[in-house]
This record gives sequence, C-alpha cells and structure tokens, in this order.
Amino acid sequence: VAMRLGELAERLECRLVGDGEIEVTGLATVESAGHGDLTFVAHARYLPAVEAGQASAVILRESDPACSKPTLRTADPYAAFAKALLLFYPPEAVPVGVHPSAIVHPDARLEDEVSVGPFCVIDARASIGRRTVVGAQVYIGKDARIGADGLIYPQVVVRERTEIGDRVIIHAGTVIGSDGFGYLTDVRGRRRKIPQVGRVVVEDDAEIGANVTIDRATVGTTRIKRGTKIDNLVQVAHNVVVGEDTVIVALAGVSGSTRIGDRVTIAGQVGIVDHVEIGDDVTIGAQAGVTNDVPAGAVVLGSPAVAHLEFKRGIAAVRRLPGLVKNVQAIEARLRALEQTAQGRAKPAAASESAGQEG
Amino acid sequence: VAMRLGELAERLECRLVGDGEIEVTGLATVESAGHGDLTFVAHARYLPAVEAGQASAVILRESDPACSKPTLRTADPYAAFAKALLLFYPPEAVPVGVHPSAIVHPDARLEDEVSVGPFCVIDARASIGRRTVVGAQVYIGKDARIGADGLIYPQVVVRERTEIGDRVIIHAGTVIGSDGFGYLTDVRGRRRKIPQVGRVVVEDDAEIGANVTIDRATVGTTRIKRGTKIDNLVQVAHNVVVGEDTVIVALAGVSGSTRIGDRVTIAGQVGIVDHVEIGDDVTIGAQAGVTNDVPAGAVVLGSPAVAHLEFKRGIAAVRRLPGLVKNVQAIEARLRALEQTAQGRAKPAAASESAGQEG
Amino acid sequence: VAMRLGELAERLECRLVGDGEIEVTGLATVESAGHGDLTFVAHARYLPAVEAGQASAVILRESDPACSKPTLRTADPYAAFAKALLLFYPPEAVPVGVHPSAIVHPDARLEDEVSVGPFCVIDARASIGRRTVVGAQVYIGKDARIGADGLIYPQVVVRERTEIGDRVIIHAGTVIGSDGFGYLTDVRGRRRKIPQVGRVVVEDDAEIGANVTIDRATVGTTRIKRGTKIDNLVQVAHNVVVGEDTVIVALAGVSGSTRIGDRVTIAGQVGIVDHVEIGDDVTIGAQAGVTNDVPAGAVVLGSPAVAHLEFKRGIAAVRRLPGLVKNVQAIEARLRALEQTAQGRAKPAAASESAGQEG
Repeated sequence: VAMRLGELAERLECRLVGDGEIEVTGLATVESAGHGDLTFVAHARYLPAVEAGQASAVILRESDPACSKPTLRTADPYAAFAKALLLFYPPEAVPVGVHPSAIVHPDARLEDEVSVGPFCVIDARASIGRRTVVGAQVYIGKDARIGADGLIYPQVVVRERTEIGDRVIIHAGTVIGSDGFGYLTDVRGRRRKIPQVGRVVVEDDAEIGANVTIDRATVGTTRIKRGTKIDNLVQVAHNVVVGEDTVIVALAGVSGSTRIGDRVTIAGQVGIVDHVEIGDDVTIGAQAGVTNDVPAGAVVLGSPAVAHLEFKRGIAAVRRLPGLVKNVQAIEARLRALEQTAQGRAKPAAASESAGQEG
Repeated sequence: VAMRLGELAERLECRLVGDGEIEVTGLATVESAGHGDLTFVAHARYLPAVEAGQASAVILRESDPACSKPTLRTADPYAAFAKALLLFYPPEAVPVGVHPSAIVHPDARLEDEVSVGPFCVIDARASIGRRTVVGAQVYIGKDARIGADGLIYPQVVVRERTEIGDRVIIHAGTVIGSDGFGYLTDVRGRRRKIPQVGRVVVEDDAEIGANVTIDRATVGTTRIKRGTKIDNLVQVAHNVVVGEDTVIVALAGVSGSTRIGDRVTIAGQVGIVDHVEIGDDVTIGAQAGVTNDVPAGAVVLGSPAVAHLEFKRGIAAVRRLPGLVKNVQAIEARLRALEQTAQGRAKPAAASESAGQEG
Repeated sequence: VAMRLGELAERLECRLVGDGEIEVTGLATVESAGHGDLTFVAHARYLPAVEAGQASAVILRESDPACSKPTLRTADPYAAFAKALLLFYPPEAVPVGVHPSAIVHPDARLEDEVSVGPFCVIDARASIGRRTVVGAQVYIGKDARIGADGLIYPQVVVRERTEIGDRVIIHAGTVIGSDGFGYLTDVRGRRRKIPQVGRVVVEDDAEIGANVTIDRATVGTTRIKRGTKIDNLVQVAHNVVVGEDTVIVALAGVSGSTRIGDRVTIAGQVGIVDHVEIGDDVTIGAQAGVTNDVPAGAVVLGSPAVAHLEFKRGIAAVRRLPGLVKNVQAIEARLRALEQTAQGRAKPAAASESAGQEG
C-alpha cells in the first residue's frame, strides 16, 4: 500500500501541514521508522527523536510545537495512527463456514457467517453468534454460548456452560471455565474436591490475552464485565467479579470471591487475596500484594499493599536508616562525654549498648 | 431438580430444624441465594447475612446459634453442601470409547471403559487405566502411563514416559513433562542444552490446574506425591519433589531440585529457589520468596522470606520509623542544650549531623 | 544400554582412574544413583555424598580430590555427563513426513526431511526449514517462517508472520505472536483496540519454554535474539527486544518496548516495566521489580529493584531496627538522668516522647 500524505490527511480527518505530495508507504514507531514511513508521538518530548529520525511524516497534536517534517495535525494522534494501521495493514478476510475437519455436534447452533477452523470441537448445545471467527483446534464445551462478532484464536478451551458476550476477543491457549480451586480437608488432612458447578460469564467487548485461566464459580458465576481487558498469563479464580472497563496486566492473580470495581488498573504480577473488595477507579501498582479492601479511587503499592504515599514514605525511611544509625552513635558518644564530665573523674556509665554493636 | 427439605435432610444425613415441607430448587452462596435456594455458612459470623438474604434454607453446624430459617444441622456444613451439589448438579455422563477422529497408536494400551475425545493423539506404548476420561485434543506421549478413574481435560500435553497415578485430574492447557531448564555455558557465554532424560511422576489423587507446567527431571524423577493439589499457572521445575497433601496456589514457582514436604501450603505467587528443603506442615505466605531451607511447621512470609513473627516485626518497625526519626531529633536538641549548659558560654558542639538533615 | 567404564572413558574423552572393567548401566544424580549408575558432581563439596552413595562410578574434575570409586577425570564433568546422557538415552527418531491427518495449505512450503505431526495446521504461505520437527496439534499461521533443525512440541501456536530461526526449540503450549496489549482510552473511559500489525522474530538457537507468551509488536518487531533461553510461563510484551545469550527464568514478565541486553540473567518472577533499557551482563534477582534503566554489568534486587549492595544494606538495616529502637530508649533514659542532675532538684523535662511509646 502506498498513499499520498494529502490523501491520508483526508482519510484520517487530520489537518495537513507541509508537503502533501510525498508518498507514505508504511507506518512505524519513531525509532524504527525509515524513508516513506509515517510515525506519531504520544508526547511532545519525543519530537527531537522525530526530527533526528528517518520518518517521512508525523502525526502530531494540534497543540504540539512545530516540526520540520510534513505533519498531520489532529486532536488525538494515537487514534489517527490506529486508523492508519487498518488502512495500511487491513486484516485478512477469514473464510466463512465450518472447516470440514471440525467436529460440530448436531445439537450445536451456529448462526450465519460463523467461521470455524480445522480440528475444532463444538460440543452439544453450544451456540456461536453471527460473524464470530473460531480459529483452529478450539474446544467449545457443552451449553457454552459465544456471542456475535467475536474472535477466538487457536487452541482456546471454553468449558461447558460458559457465556461469552458480543465482540469478545480471546487469545490463543486460554482456558475459560476450569474448575475453581476448592477442597474440603478431612480429619486426616486429605483434601476432597468440592464440585465446581458454577460458570463463567465474559461480557461484551472484553478481551482476554493468551494462556490466561479463568475459573468457573463453585456455585453461581465468575464474571468479567463489559469492556474489561485482560493481558496474558493472568489467573482469575472462582466467583471473582471484575467490573467494567478494568485492565489486568500480565501475570496478575485474583483470588476467590474477590470483587473488583469499574475502571480499575491492576498492573503486572499483582496478587489480590480472596474475599476482598476493590473499589472503582483504583490503581494497583506492579507486584503489589493486596490483602484488604481498597476504597474507590485509591492508589496502592507494595506487598502488603498500602496507600501510595505511605509506600513512598516507607521506602524513603528505609533509605535513611544507615544515616540514622550513625546519628544515634554520634549522640551516644556525646552523651557519654557529658556523663563523664558530670561525674567528674567517676567511672564511665556501665550501659554500653550501642547502635554500632548492633551492626 | 427440586426436593423437599425433609428429604434433603435424610439424603445429606443432617438434622432438620423447622419446616421440612419447603421445596429446595437450587444451591447458592449466601450473597447470591434467591427464593428456593439452600445455602450454608462456614462461620457463625455470616449468620446475619443469611437472615438478611433470600435463601429459603441453610446448613449450619450443630454448635452454631439458632437461625429463623429452616435449617439442616450437621457436624460439617461444607461437606453436606458439597454432597448436595452432586445431587442438584450431577456430572453429565461421558460416552465410553475412543472417538473415531482420535489417533491411537496400535502399540498403545487402553483399559476397559476408557473415554478418548476427538483429535486426541495417544502415542506408541502409552497406556490409560480403566474408566479414565481423556478430553478433546489431548496429547499423550510415548510410554506415558495414565492410571484409572482419571480425568484429563482438553488440550493437555503429557509428554513421553510421564507416569500419572489413579484418580488424577489434570485441567485444560497443562503441560506435564516439558524439558527442565538446564544448560552448560561455554567459554564464549553460549549455552548448550543438557539433555533432559528424566521423567515426571504424578501420584494418586493429585489434581493439577489449568495451564500449569511441570518439567521432567534432567535424570531421575520430578515427583508430585499423593493427594497434592496444584492451582492454575504454577511452574514446577526439574527434579522437584512435592510431598503428599500439599497445596500450591496459582502463579507460584518451585525451582529445580527443591524438596517440599507433606501438608505444605504454598500461597499464590510464591517463589522458591532451587536446591532447598521445605519441611512438612510449612505455610508460605502469598508472594513470599523462599531462599533457604524452611523447618517443619514454620510459617514464613516476605521476600526474602523470614519467620512470620520476624516479618510482622519488620513491617511494624518500618511503620514506626518516621516517629523514631523525630525522637532522635528531639534527643539531639536536648543533648545540645545540656552540652551548652555544661560548657557555660563556650561554643556549641561542632558536631552537627542530625537525623533531620538526613531527611 | 550397558557399557564398560573403560569404553565410556574413551567415548567421553576422559582419563580413567580405577577399575575400567565395571559395567555402567545408567546415569543418575548423586542422591538417586544406584548400583551400576555413573554420576558426577558439580562441586568437590559433594564428594562425601558420592562416597556415601550407591553410584558405581563418578565423573570428576581433574583438580578434585581423590575418590575411592572408579573415576572419570575431565576438565568439565557436567559436559561429559551431558554427552553420556545422549549415549545412554538416545533421542528416539521421529518419522520424516507429514502425518496424513495434518492440514497443510497448498501454498505452504515444507523443505526436505520435515516432520509434521497429527492434527497440525500449517496455514497459507507458511514455510518450515529442513529437518525441523513439528509435534502434534501445532498451529502455524499465515506467512510464518520456521527455520531448519527446529523442534516444536505439541500444541504450540505460532501466529501469522512470525519468524523463527534455525535450531530453535519451542515447548508445548506456548503462544508466539499474540496481540500486544494496547488500547486507546476514549473520553468515556472505554478502551478501543489498537491493531497489532507487527510481528515476532525468534533468532537462531533460542529455546522457549512451555506455556510462554510472546506478543507481536504493535508495529515493527518483538525480537528474541540468538541463543537466548526462556523458561516456562514467561511473558514478553509487544516491541520488546531481548539480546543474545540471555536467560529469562519462569514466571518473569517484560513489559512493552523494553530493551534487554546480551548475556543478561533475569531470575524467576522478575517484572520489568515498559520502555526501560537493561544493559549487557546484568543480573536481576528473583522477584525483583525493575522500574528504571539498569547499566551494563549491574546486579539488582528487590522491588523496586536497587543495586545489590544497597538491597543488602536495606535488609540489614531493617533487621537492626528493633535494636536501634532500644538504643534510643536507653539514650533517652540516660539523657533524662543527666538533665535532672543538671537542673538539681528542678522538675524533669516536659518532653516525654519516646521511641518506646511509639511501639
């Protein structure tokens, strides 16, 4: 694909500044851009990198400073760039229909224009909504329901009775509806399995990363609400409820029955214990370990997690510790001198514990 | 399914208190219970929630306080509830036999009543014990042995020579018998692979979660002993031995050659270094990083992990730090005053380091 | 397989000390070795274990002390042991050719001696180099290129346009080329997906563990360079570059656009934020959380990660805290005594804050 910058300006609804006749042949990040590439910057501080780089043109915010290269001005450069990505790299069409190697149970229900890839298994009474694409080697269990306009990548497992909304994307290797981790311990310390008879609901517009695990509820429902995005290798335990427009980054884990609000950000490798409540608009920093409820709007860090400011104070205090130890030693020396003066030529004080000896 | 509470009392061997004629139509947790639902509480402190909720009946401990709702009394409410789950949600029977699409090597040995799902591959000399159910798209490698009454969910990989005991459950997406992570570094800093010729043994009654990885031994055996339960996304490295009735929660990792005792609890996101020994009945708190042997019965927390009490003292001490800094400042001021008194009108002490200046 | 120790000495190019006529029938670690087994030790300090154990012979460094058992002497015992592993446990030959159940697109290109397992899907324009073995149930997407002499275990997903070099090993359940985790947040706080049109390149001699996820770049390339080894359950985000001969241990995660140098060691459960630069020869300790650039050669620990020595000092200082609190209390008592002396029979100082009261 190649396009004049002027034409691109029209298609992306941007204001053209500079030479509209140059040819754009690709898109790239600032560092990797070469001749012919259009790039963008998220912050004006990266403008010098654009000037120094090889990109032929750049998308900038209306309020950004001037740039010597041909420029597309817009309110939201990232959005314009995302739109351009679809122009230059249009997704390849997937053939509609069921691959002859797929095994679709006669009681399963596939709506119009569904695509089912090779070696898929669609079990009894499962249903798949219009235009949804199911990649190769996927397993859809009994009574599972997948909405319309979805995209399920290869080798996903959707276990029985799971419900997936419309426009949901599920990446390769992910398991939805595995048993919750629940046991009864008998008097000999042996664990007997508690049947996990609940289910998982993933609402509209959610996206679930690769090799994620979302456990079904013991009874009731594990729920991922509308618009929530989950990164790779995340664990969501039984009976958890995750609110709308929330983000959970890679390798984080949420324990059983915990409830997470709307617009929450859970950074990478965060762990959250069971049966707590995380309010709306909370931010949980990377690797934090949340052991209690978190009120709406809070920012928490650390393990165990505490409020942002308390965490920073703790870190600062620990850094100051070696200095504090030296101060106490100095104080003690001065104190000893005073005591000796006070006692004239009397014996020095018997007490001799000192911070120095602790080290 | 619907059942009179009186009949349910008999079936679950509970003592009925209140109206036995009411109809139970489902089971639910306290919060999600509606009209017709039977619920249970693990602790008497949740009784007010039962009273406030919609459940039609509740299972309580004999020693719990009275409840205004019809009640089933028993020594172990959770066990009775688990039993009721099987009455109300009986697992669907799986058809016995090998799905015609599965590829079973002529030298593989399948015992009676085995079920093998579509697109499975059972390689040469593998064996599967009586009544074991193998879900869709599973791979069982050469010479692997699976015991009786097992349940293997879709898209599991069991690599060559792995041994799985009886009544073992393995959840979807899990890989058992992948190569241990072992290399020789040559003089140029390049790594040459050490052949991983050992195997994995998973003993009877173990359960392994979804998307777990258990590496084969370099030589010898990586072993998961009887009754141990492993949650989703756990990593067990080569030559590790995990004892009996132990629990490993999601996203934890155990490094090579480490030995873990019986009845150990390893919480979520714990990491354990290689070549250490964790005694029986140890508890390791969430996100802990274990860098040394842990004696039997110990409770350890933190990263690096220390004994429970030491960890709590450390946390408390850090919280007390800002106060300590202020105290030292106050002490120094008083000391300076004393020094000035002692020296009459002499110059103040030259030493002027203070905790305050460190801040 | 059984072999005289003398013959083994020749084959492994070791110097024989002791009885060359004994029969070696297997290889084992020191602890698990039985009669007939050859073992080795990485450090001379394990020699007493060899003497006490059942092994029939041992491989030792030329400089190690003497051992009473028949011994093979060499400069690198581990390398000799690895060589012996291949003699005693030769890898089973894999049949060349495409399994009749596999679906290979007519436009895919398979070079000579390739092996493709059952139920594989090789999509349009994908290519696979000479002698590469593709296990069962693997998915290779459109335009993906796999080099020669590779080994891809069952149930791997290699998405479209991924490039894999020569001699690369990919373990079961791994996903390469999943979408990067990138969204635009609109004014209502809803996220719109940014198309992820980049790709992944895994260079020659890399090895990728089981259930790993490596995301494709937004635009451009996520790159794993030559010789790098990645353990199980690791997450590598979009646009990351990992250098040569680097090691990433299980459950670690690297966030978007971060660049990692050559010969870096990233221990288990490490997290690294986005857009930072990790220099060559860096070592990052287990569970560390890296939030900033790390200069070449540094050793960092902790979360947030700091230089090795600073981390150790911090740990030591926190351990010393309870002693410090006691010292301050003692100092205050002595100060109070001095003040009372100085004031004769005057009232004691009004100030009474003490470290003790903070506890």
